[in-house]
Amino acid sequence: MAPSMEQDQLEGPINNGNASANVAFADEVPHISRVTVVGSGNWGSVASKLIASNTLKISSFHDEVRMWVFEETLPSGEKLSEVINRTNENVKYLPGIKLPKNVVADPDLEHAVKDSNMLVFVTPHQFMEGICKRLVGKIRKDAVAISLIKGMEVKREGPCMISTLISEILGISCCVLMGANIANEIAVEKFSEATVGYREDKEIAEKWVRLFNTPYFMVSAVQDVEGVELCGTLKNVVALAAGFVDGLEMGNNTKAAIMRIGLREMKAFSKLLFPSVKDNTFFESCGVADLITTCLGGRNRKCAEAFARNGGKRSFDELEAEMLQGQKLQGVSTAKEVYEVLHHRGWLELFPLFATVHEICSGRLAPSTIVEYTEHSARLPLLESPAHLN
Amino acid sequence: MAPSMEQDQLEGPINNGNASANVAFADEVPHISRVTVVGSGNWGSVASKLIASNTLKISSFHDEVRMWVFEETLPSGEKLSEVINRTNENVKYLPGIKLPKNVVADPDLEHAVKDSNMLVFVTPHQFMEGICKRLVGKIRKDAVAISLIKGMEVKREGPCMISTLISEILGISCCVLMGANIANEIAVEKFSEATVGYREDKEIAEKWVRLFNTPYFMVSAVQDVEGVELCGTLKNVVALAAGFVDGLEMGNNTKAAIMRIGLREMKAFSKLLFPSVKDNTFFESCGVADLITTCLGGRNRKCAEAFARNGGKRSFDELEAEMLQGQKLQGVSTAKEVYEVLHHRGWLELFPLFATVHEICSGRLAPSTIVEYTEHSARLPLLESPAHLN
Repeated sequence: MAPSMEQDQLEGPINNGNASANVAFADEVPHISRVTVVGSGNWGSVASKLIASNTLKISSFHDEVRMWVFEETLPSGEKLSEVINRTNENVKYLPGIKLPKNVVADPDLEHAVKDSNMLVFVTPHQFMEGICKRLVGKIRKDAVAISLIKGMEVKREGPCMISTLISEILGISCCVLMGANIANEIAVEKFSEATVGYREDKEIAEKWVRLFNTPYFMVSAVQDVEGVELCGTLKNVVALAAGFVDGLEMGNNTKAAIMRIGLREMKAFSKLLFPSVKDNTFFESCGVADLITTCLGGRNRKCAEAFARNGGKRSFDELEAEMLQGQKLQGVSTAKEVYEVLHHRGWLELFPLFATVHEICSGRLAPSTIVEYTEHSARLPLLESPAHLN
Repeated sequence: MAPSMEQDQLEGPINNGNASANVAFADEVPHISRVTVVGSGNWGSVASKLIASNTLKISSFHDEVRMWVFEETLPSGEKLSEVINRTNENVKYLPGIKLPKNVVADPDLEHAVKDSNMLVFVTPHQFMEGICKRLVGKIRKDAVAISLIKGMEVKREGPCMISTLISEILGISCCVLMGANIANEIAVEKFSEATVGYREDKEIAEKWVRLFNTPYFMVSAVQDVEGVELCGTLKNVVALAAGFVDGLEMGNNTKAAIMRIGLREMKAFSKLLFPSVKDNTFFESCGVADLITTCLGGRNRKCAEAFARNGGKRSFDELEAEMLQGQKLQGVSTAKEVYEVLHHRGWLELFPLFATVHEICSGRLAPSTIVEYTEHSARLPLLESPAHLN
């Protein structure tokens, strides 16, 4: 069991007059950490469930997990946060799944984060800049963050990863967690894996691993925050390409080839942007496994299939409205952002798959060009050699 | 157009008294190569189609492609080889697809190979040793080989790859060609990729690439014959694991995790056996793409799904007889061979996925153990560090 609120004052090792016992004790009872999950959509609710099952079991975490809820009034007239706290269920975004009782929904962002030193960010990526700006000066000085958010901001000066945005605005360390993680499957405790990416502090990464890891959710850490985050972001572009191939009924060889070429462009693009990115990251859950899950199921693939079946005559806006109840596809906006980077840096010819996906999404090319233009990619020797581009 | 039979004598550059023109001419008209495909099953027939379309177009290859047919009498009473030569169709193994007219079926093995210097081996792997022994002393001295065969021979002294078997028995160079290559999709000219693995001679590899490459079949070469061949072999074991997950209805996260862990074991096993194996090979068509195709479609996956649905109560022998008209699954025998290597070398604990697949196939473990035992694999740090095992 985790300690009670009173024990929260335990901020350092207790000196019991025995140096070696003291060291052991310091290992076993480190600072008690408090966790807040910023976000309560489908994935945020599942993340809260995973985390809250661990804070109950691991004594270095305070039991309670705060979950910030972007307040909504339900058709019944009740507030979403109140219903979550009364029923232990996010009836809107994760219906049918009970959350542990130590998950406390909180509609007040500043209040939700103020006592926590471990902040888990899991909101749609376009809200992150605003949320971070609201939190400046409102968080604990020893807070650290982890981002579960896919996507990036493309600014005039270049692409900015969400973990960098959080780090820079809040002045804190930020890891990422990505992987083959369809939320509803994890909610019913089917086995899956995930990857934590960290920059320098291995101890903090290990703490995140302990917080998320369960017998059915196996987490590993790699020192490659950009590689892990770019995998999570770019795979949605490849999923659109895979969806086009499905819609065109081109078969498994072609789909596998497009996925492989997509993985190759993901790796090359990541290494061009961040030379520290490691090849092995693409063999982790965040890499090849997430790519597979997303290209087999996933809404990017599904809408892209419908788009290709209609010969591109119905726009993504229209298909999203019909198939996703108004949610927007991450892949379509990421494809546009990636295209802007490629265009700005003169790399368009090096990434025919990425470039073609955006041209198809925006209606400038027919879906069938995905194969015809992309096969060129696999013939490019430059992709693996950033040095040639300088 | 390729030269006629008479031009076959053109074995060296012609000296026309002009040194620089002579060099250019030597480049353009090198030795004329003759090709024989040893094997005429589904993949052998498609390979003959690919090759024969190129020998017609590329002047350095003789038009005619000999295809050795293991002679069978069809229900009509006709010989298979005669029907192929009369109708330009392998009515038994590739019905509905016309072969180019320059494919000549030949039921006499020695006769089929005697004039060729490029031998393409594509038979079931258990026949290769016998075929090679029959060919000793019967092939051209300048012959080179390529193997399209998946599988390996496990002998007392360790595993022996088919390309090594061919090389050693016949005393000739042997490349391999593997990839995401469902034969029937290539037969109808849907886009796919393939990988040629070669040992040392890049020029020979490039010649094989020219022989196989078409606009819809994109071939690349990598200097890693063992890596490429082991990818093609081991992926069938992973496909069985993926099939079990499908049969147990565990969802896409779990399937992607099992495929990823399988790829990781493929890489680790290959590198332990052959330290020269390269990580990048697993990003080629023979690696991740073939794994994807095989785990999405493919008969290994399909039979394993049926096996798991029946809770392992119907044996693979029974399911194969019912679902594959008596053909045997490559994956089941490869899993056994791999298990023998692991057992012999004391590596069983390092490869829980490979080991568990064989234990399930042989009825010693329930299909559901595939996840329970395999998740252990991703936690093993040793896999990437062969040095630790010595």
